[in-house]
Amino acid sequence: MIGIVGGVGPMAGADLFKKITEQSPARTDQEHLPVIMMSFPHRIADRTEYLEGKVLENPGIQLAKICFELSKAGVTVAGIPCNTAHAPAIFDKMLSDLRQLNCNIRIVHMVNETVNHIKQNFPIGTKVGILSTNGSYKQKIYFDKLVEAGFYPVVPDEKIQSELVHASVYDQQYGIKTQQGRITEKALSQLEGVIEMMKNQDTQALILGCTEISYALSTRTDKDITHIDPTSILASALIAEYNRSKKKAPQ
Amino acid sequence: MIGIVGGVGPMAGADLFKKITEQSPARTDQEHLPVIMMSFPHRIADRTEYLEGKVLENPGIQLAKICFELSKAGVTVAGIPCNTAHAPAIFDKMLSDLRQLNCNIRIVHMVNETVNHIKQNFPIGTKVGILSTNGSYKQKIYFDKLVEAGFYPVVPDEKIQSELVHASVYDQQYGIKTQQGRITEKALSQLEGVIEMMKNQDTQALILGCTEISYALSTRTDKDITHIDPTSILASALIAEYNRSKKKAPQ
Repeated sequence: MIGIVGGVGPMAGADLFKKITEQSPARTDQEHLPVIMMSFPHRIADRTEYLEGKVLENPGIQLAKICFELSKAGVTVAGIPCNTAHAPAIFDKMLSDLRQLNCNIRIVHMVNETVNHIKQNFPIGTKVGILSTNGSYKQKIYFDKLVEAGFYPVVPDEKIQSELVHASVYDQQYGIKTQQGRITEKALSQLEGVIEMMKNQDTQALILGCTEISYALSTRTDKDITHIDPTSILASALIAEYNRSKKKAPQ
Repeated sequence: MIGIVGGVGPMAGADLFKKITEQSPARTDQEHLPVIMMSFPHRIADRTEYLEGKVLENPGIQLAKICFELSKAGVTVAGIPCNTAHAPAIFDKMLSDLRQLNCNIRIVHMVNETVNHIKQNFPIGTKVGILSTNGSYKQKIYFDKLVEAGFYPVVPDEKIQSELVHASVYDQQYGIKTQQGRITEKALSQLEGVIEMMKNQDTQALILGCTEISYALSTRTDKDITHIDPTSILASALIAEYNRSKKKAPQ
């Protein structure tokens, strides 16, 4: 079965589930893939706050425990729809805890899958914009991997990152995380303002590198800049991995 | 924890999750409620097909097994976002199997909650339209309960029910269930046509009595006929029940 670690962003888990469903060529209920989503938000500390030293417990510890619970419930391959959780400080801790638990659930790496998708679809040297939380921004989660793969990452300066991008996700008055799934006009217009700046710098592709931002923007298209949605890429990778493991497993 | 029995309608589980999230007054990820969704569509036979005698296994058997699995994973209260599954032939089988399993998970009854909501919000004698699958239609799932509560149910004749309403959900070319989460224009316009007929009969309220139909129509409003969304009412009842059980339980 496919597993979703929910609770890392109020709508991120449901959005990943929706994208798995949309990408499944099923014509009846019964043909859709088996999925378990465990959404235990109270157990997982905020990823950016951990990376910034504001909370002490590494969210990777609880992510490992939840993956272990998914595994016990029959899940063989799982995804975590939170880009910031893929910072090595968190993700590697989770993997090492899973090894200690002797748990061999396969976790699809959303950030690596996204960078692979870019490699396959854009020429080397393409300018790729990144919209993300401050946690991902400071840890350069996408930035370093893009450079390594031969692309030019485009990110806002620190002030714009914090006051326009990060705030669009976290602000208590209008941030996407804080409004029970409503996408406020202010969050949208701030993100759009930053995207305009990136377009003025000849950015041709844009990573919606926070699952809240992809939830808010993934249905929009823009002829001048190609939106790249990691949640959707994760959905597609989970389906592929599920099909591969099903082929291998004796029935 | 709250449990969702998914897989009864491709998007129904995710839609219920979304509505729980939207109704939770949380300002951070961590304040949202713990939810497990088990979406095992391949295991649950189509509810209308069972009620029409086209498949033999009662879907209530698998629904009970999945509720039992939710219970073992820590769920105390669960919902099944499928109106047709609330037909007594299915729902009662599930409850009796759960008793045999000694499982005391509480299942919130979506149809009863919806009728209670109508009682609290509309005067006796109100004409209430019902859009549903053929299974719910023939079993009179909402019809009988509305009559008992003193309301006038309004339903299409059998031909319109089958060719316009049921087909909008099941048709292989344009039905909501068969299009991986896309809502086709044809499905929408058929449903809207039926709603217009109901409005011409002075129908004041409308039960979106199939989770696919509520997924397709719940964000629309109509000043002439009040949409009643069972998925949203189920979400609210699950939250209330969760809060009640949390108050009771020793921490």
